[in-house]
Amino acid sequence: MKRRFYLRLLFSKSSHFSLRMSILGIISLLSKRTLNTTPSLQEVMLTSERYGVQRLPFSHVSNRDLAFFECLMPGRVITDPDELKLFNVDWLQSGHLVRCLHFGPCLGKRGGTGILICQAGCILENLSQYLESMDFTMPLDLGAKGSCHIGGNVATNAGGLRVLRYGSLRGTVLGLEVVLADGSILNCLASLQKDNTGYDLKQLFIGSEGTLGVITTVSILCPQKPKAVNLAFLGCPGFSQVLETFTTCRGMLGEILSAYEFMDDKSMKLVESHLKLSNPVTGSPFYVLIETSGSNSAHDEEKLNHFLEQAMTSGLVMDGTVVTEDKRIKALWALRERITEALTHDGYVYKYDISLPVKRLYDLVTDTRERLGRSAKNVVGYGHLGDGNLHLNITAESYSHSLLEAIEPFVYEWTAQYQVSISAEHGLGFKKKHYIHYSKPREAVHLMQKFKAMLDPKGILNPYKTLDNV
Amino acid sequence: MKRRFYLRLLFSKSSHFSLRMSILGIISLLSKRTLNTTPSLQEVMLTSERYGVQRLPFSHVSNRDLAFFECLMPGRVITDPDELKLFNVDWLQSGHLVRCLHFGPCLGKRGGTGILICQAGCILENLSQYLESMDFTMPLDLGAKGSCHIGGNVATNAGGLRVLRYGSLRGTVLGLEVVLADGSILNCLASLQKDNTGYDLKQLFIGSEGTLGVITTVSILCPQKPKAVNLAFLGCPGFSQVLETFTTCRGMLGEILSAYEFMDDKSMKLVESHLKLSNPVTGSPFYVLIETSGSNSAHDEEKLNHFLEQAMTSGLVMDGTVVTEDKRIKALWALRERITEALTHDGYVYKYDISLPVKRLYDLVTDTRERLGRSAKNVVGYGHLGDGNLHLNITAESYSHSLLEAIEPFVYEWTAQYQVSISAEHGLGFKKKHYIHYSKPREAVHLMQKFKAMLDPKGILNPYKTLDNV
Repeated sequence: MKRRFYLRLLFSKSSHFSLRMSILGIISLLSKRTLNTTPSLQEVMLTSERYGVQRLPFSHVSNRDLAFFECLMPGRVITDPDELKLFNVDWLQSGHLVRCLHFGPCLGKRGGTGILICQAGCILENLSQYLESMDFTMPLDLGAKGSCHIGGNVATNAGGLRVLRYGSLRGTVLGLEVVLADGSILNCLASLQKDNTGYDLKQLFIGSEGTLGVITTVSILCPQKPKAVNLAFLGCPGFSQVLETFTTCRGMLGEILSAYEFMDDKSMKLVESHLKLSNPVTGSPFYVLIETSGSNSAHDEEKLNHFLEQAMTSGLVMDGTVVTEDKRIKALWALRERITEALTHDGYVYKYDISLPVKRLYDLVTDTRERLGRSAKNVVGYGHLGDGNLHLNITAESYSHSLLEAIEPFVYEWTAQYQVSISAEHGLGFKKKHYIHYSKPREAVHLMQKFKAMLDPKGILNPYKTLDNV
Repeated sequence: MKRRFYLRLLFSKSSHFSLRMSILGIISLLSKRTLNTTPSLQEVMLTSERYGVQRLPFSHVSNRDLAFFECLMPGRVITDPDELKLFNVDWLQSGHLVRCLHFGPCLGKRGGTGILICQAGCILENLSQYLESMDFTMPLDLGAKGSCHIGGNVATNAGGLRVLRYGSLRGTVLGLEVVLADGSILNCLASLQKDNTGYDLKQLFIGSEGTLGVITTVSILCPQKPKAVNLAFLGCPGFSQVLETFTTCRGMLGEILSAYEFMDDKSMKLVESHLKLSNPVTGSPFYVLIETSGSNSAHDEEKLNHFLEQAMTSGLVMDGTVVTEDKRIKALWALRERITEALTHDGYVYKYDISLPVKRLYDLVTDTRERLGRSAKNVVGYGHLGDGNLHLNITAESYSHSLLEAIEPFVYEWTAQYQVSISAEHGLGFKKKHYIHYSKPREAVHLMQKFKAMLDPKGILNPYKTLDNV
């Protein structure tokens, strides 16, 4: 049963699945588990069971199929149900994983610019370390960097902490290699910064959550490693001061501002209680993390000091700390990056990832908290303020359908009064696909369905995700 | 005859062209000519005649059609052949124009970020001025800014002078409204910095040269206007010094480097002789323009001075000048921006726009010059070195088929030894569509053709361009 579930990507009703597609399947069987956050292997209800998903008419893995895989990669096909369990549950303890083999990345340099080419299965943090050793930096940084794969990052158009400085992956991904549903390989792996020959096909696969093709190789433009990095962790007396602090530092720090994150008091409390991290600045209802990255440490410090003086004098900021050493920067970033992890320790998590006009960003948290009252354990808000991106998270002791019904569609209807995205950077996946109409007009969804039907007529690529079946 | 040519966008063999599509057509008839560079209205051979284009089975404009347009917009339909002539010839004196009505842009501000929404027919320079008056800046800047429309810029994914700093339009365009071939309007006009709900459809229209849909409205993320701008114009003794100067300034100027352009001596000579502009630094075989944009003039000047000292001491730069006043900056930029205009005064121009590894960039110019010898009047090279983008231009007294045959496929075969793009930022258009295979594999071209067939089954959108008919 679980085995079939895991391998369903490979087997459509028709038996005409191609060799290349099979190899991809094998590859996903091969890689070793590399998650830093190992989930406790408690019994988790499968998505198909929890949400009563009707299985699409895919075929099942036969002994003949297994023999075929065994022949391709002798001794490396896993069929033991206990071993497979690990692959059926993700670290949020829902959904399942498909993994790709990864081998070494390579960096090309062109006139002071780094161009990284790597396999989809490379772990983001490993790529970052590889690049830093060569004085370059990854334009993408996420809290989950220790476990997430670059292929997945691109497939979901992951945003993260550095969008403010380096923009979205749509600008930094130079090329992709993608395996299509018919088993053919689409090579869009150019490593050129500019290329206007025909349509930019790779864009369609960025952010399509694996539903149009499987990304196997990625080429990314990587900026030079900044010579000086400063990180300020500040406490603000209210959300309006969080906003004003952003406008002020945007003007005064300008081109060296590389991140502006905000966290509410409740999310910091969870990090402190569940992960035993210590918050150097306490007693504020809101906190912000301001990172600068520049080429001249004296200039950067001067800019930062001017800004801090101004922010303290005008009462925007109550208290704060600034660090410049690498180790202390990492420790301070952990307060923000590990909120997601702290939340999973708090119980079952209902996660929302919304683009909103910044002025209204926190009202959604307040209103949701009020609405849910004691039926929720915690309602927290944090996120990438510089990108207008709120992460709203609600925890409860365990999953409850009635709590879900109190949250949805309330959250979507609340946000519908503004021009919003109900998935700023996480993707629609399985749980949010029905809500796409809150962000996209009918004609757009219809066109997406036409693309899906054209590129994956049998619906074998990441089924049940992103779009409803036509 | 000319009338038919101009209006052919609107009339497919089938008479089922929709009302909306017709309105678009009317709109293109309405707008007044706003080109700064008015072409001399000498008789120009139409592309269809020069290249013997076989007309696709489109219908012709009937009196009934004209009556329909007249009824929609009384008194504004142009049918006089002399008046229409203007619309059949572009300023490079080939091709033809389709124009859109434009009305006022509007700027939204969100936490120190500007989001511009404007009609496709807005002139780039007008948008720039509008934004600057509100302390924001356009992420796109081109030599042709005085005449080009933002809709065309997006449809061709125009690159220009600021890609180095603000990235490509794919990252800064937040939303589009597009009219599809069936007359329906696709609204992807979100103004959010992040939105991962479904596939990013707008990307397919960016850079598709109007062959998949007509862009009618654009939303763009606009950075704050830099507080300090410096421009250095420097002479280098050779192309290897041009490259080394780039690497040096990339390291020393870092985040404030906003443009790095190079020009060869020959292109400067054309600007001086045809446009009577004076070059303040003479006697070098190569020139570079280095622009910095930052938030602190004292810091920026200090960085620039350190860099210049280093570049002069080490012999990378022979001579140079630095300006900071707005007027002098504009005058100096004109030396680079008006090369294209100077070339048109030199005769018929064969234009190439290639992405190459920077180290080989100028070899193509030298080799082409040697190959063509006296059959060409001038062979010049300049471009966006920071993006690895060469503009190779060849002039002759008049168009000659034999000269074209000496250039093509030579240029494409020369570049094929590297991983290149034969159209870095200009698009394939009519003349280069046959050469797409030098940059894209067969499978990719095949997939593009499938998209074209799906979105424009009758082939009425910008016919004869980008892709060969299937």
